Amino acid sequence: MIKAIIFDLDNTLLDFIKMKQFAVKVAITAMNEAGLDVNEKTAYQDIFNLYMEKGWENQQVFDDYLTQTTGEVSHKILAAGIVSYRRAREATLLVYPNVNKTLIQLIKMGIKLAVVSDAPSREAWMRLYYLNLHHVFDPVLTFDDTGVRKPSPKPFKLALKGLNVKPEEALMIGDWPERDVVGAGQIGMKTVFARYGDTFGTIDSGANYDVNDIYEVVSIIEELNDV
Amino acid sequence: MIKAIIFDLDNTLLDFIKMKQFAVKVAITAMNEAGLDVNEKTAYQDIFNLYMEKGWENQQVFDDYLTQTTGEVSHKILAAGIVSYRRAREATLLVYPNVNKTLIQLIKMGIKLAVVSDAPSREAWMRLYYLNLHHVFDPVLTFDDTGVRKPSPKPFKLALKGLNVKPEEALMIGDWPERDVVGAGQIGMKTVFARYGDTFGTIDSGANYDVNDIYEVVSIIEELNDV
Repeated sequence: MIKAIIFDLDNTLLDFIKMKQFAVKVAITAMNEAGLDVNEKTAYQDIFNLYMEKGWENQQVFDDYLTQTTGEVSHKILAAGIVSYRRAREATLLVYPNVNKTLIQLIKMGIKLAVVSDAPSREAWMRLYYLNLHHVFDPVLTFDDTGVRKPSPKPFKLALKGLNVKPEEALMIGDWPERDVVGAGQIGMKTVFARYGDTFGTIDSGANYDVNDIYEVVSIIEELNDV
Repeated sequence: MIKAIIFDLDNTLLDFIKMKQFAVKVAITAMNEAGLDVNEKTAYQDIFNLYMEKGWENQQVFDDYLTQTTGEVSHKILAAGIVSYRRAREATLLVYPNVNKTLIQLIKMGIKLAVVSDAPSREAWMRLYYLNLHHVFDPVLTFDDTGVRKPSPKPFKLALKGLNVKPEEALMIGDWPERDVVGAGQIGMKTVFARYGDTFGTIDSGANYDVNDIYEVVSIIEELNDV
């Protein structure tokens, strides 16, 4: 009997990569318009390299990019980048198709919902708030709450405790096999691979289920619970 | 012959106080909706006290407010406050009536335009970019560029140097008599008091001109230049 679902956040509920790609492109165009004068494709690659090196949540990436490219940080150019990035993020930080429909349906079915994310707490909550999902999940556990990243069993166990369910009564859904699927599977949870959010070219997810649309979890639960 | 105008930024070109008041109110409502449960009027006063104590540009004020009020920082509540504040700021950070009309008219008249502000450089440029004024002024001098605040003559002198005009060829317009009017007046510039942006209840501005609408500077220049 499945009583709860634990969701990964980025690239499972919301399309983090698409948002980031679009927002960075818009920011580069704006910085060029403000006087930067760089090749947009090269700049895009340089900025993504900085994100990969310094972390996807790093707030200093545009400062660092301007320093490495021009030898200084022009606040005129930086402001153009930051403001344009924020506006683009506001416009493109979206849930995947059917996420809202799925969450409402699961709540109607009496399924408890939680989030386990490796993102920083403040940024995770800001994304949930942007998407008006801040009242949907309880608990929301992030790296700041648990001190460890998936696939450590700790965040999953804390989430199950918060949900007050046993591992075999919960599903985990995520886009990162080595973290989400391995982490939840090792403590006895059933697992769902969010193939629609895959950015790794995953062939064998190792999960109990692969889904191309998040709404498929509704029928997975119906099947498991023999509704 | 007036060849240039130096503008103060906050409460002269844009209505900083109105934006701040509205954004803080919206943020408090959102934080209450996310679970804070405080009296909105008391919270508003507490947050403004924190801004006055820690500076209007301080980015940690909501963190500090939550700590002093609840003993901790709930990221759920903080995220609601920050996201709502940013959305409200985007909607309410506006230039005063006739600012765009005035600036375009001055450019058509061949008048050079600069900004001298005591705000931090990054924040000043972000506000200029939000308002699409980032190509209008040259130079834009802030506290970070000069290291001193008005009424020190240094930022005014640097601005005149950047504009390549003499003090008697430039007007200064600002909302703060002790800084804008005194600072510019002492080096021989003519001064205009932006009475529409006054938040101090100023009676005698000490300026050469008081204006209730920024467009009045156009006729002041026409008068001085005997057009």
